[in-house]
Amino acid sequence: MDFDPASLRFDANGLVPAIAQDHATGEVLMLAWMNAEAVSRTLTTGRVTYWSRSRQAFWVKGETSGHTQRLVEMRIDCDRDCLLMLIEQAGPACHTNRRSCFYTALRAGEERIILDPMA
Amino acid sequence: MDFDPASLRFDANGLVPAIAQDHATGEVLMLAWMNAEAVSRTLTTGRVTYWSRSRQAFWVKGETSGHTQRLVEMRIDCDRDCLLMLIEQAGPACHTNRRSCFYTALRAGEERIILDPMA
Repeated sequence: MDFDPASLRFDANGLVPAIAQDHATGEVLMLAWMNAEAVSRTLTTGRVTYWSRSRQAFWVKGETSGHTQRLVEMRIDCDRDCLLMLIEQAGPACHTNRRSCFYTALRAGEERIILDPMA
Repeated sequence: MDFDPASLRFDANGLVPAIAQDHATGEVLMLAWMNAEAVSRTLTTGRVTYWSRSRQAFWVKGETSGHTQRLVEMRIDCDRDCLLMLIEQAGPACHTNRRSCFYTALRAGEERIILDPMA
């Protein structure tokens, strides 16, 4: 692999934001964070692996829940400080059991829940 | 408006990442940052307004280039620390004149430019 994760522009904590988008529907499912090693592991294994800021540990998405993310393609933005991952999501991406974490919309100045948890 | 931007969970710099997605096509166009006042201005004016970390100033997208972003709907993620904006993009979103900032794909371990600048 010629691509070097160290060539990305990480923030002061050594992280970049990574957007997960359903490769088939285009739905944006979540945003989490990756350090260089998480990027490398994601590319090598094809299983999306984040860095958990709260736990300060690698987080193989779905490792405990089974709601895995298979990497279809990783894209880099023009500033090299953000990643877009086209993925195949097994089940819900959100810990609330919803397909996407972005289930709260602002409509007429109020918050509205627009997605139900998956059955 | 009942929604209070201060209810979001801002980072140590007072910012949240904001993803801009084409409301019609689902294409993810860019990611930039907002503070509470940028969120408020975006909601009030309907013109997407970021906080420029490099310039330390408000950044009304397209104010100089004409490549404006009209807000269609703002969504909040489960942790309240990331925004998804469904927008209507005038022209290219990227400063390289490409429709999206995510024009570099990793394929077979190499970086490939997959979008041309707009005419």
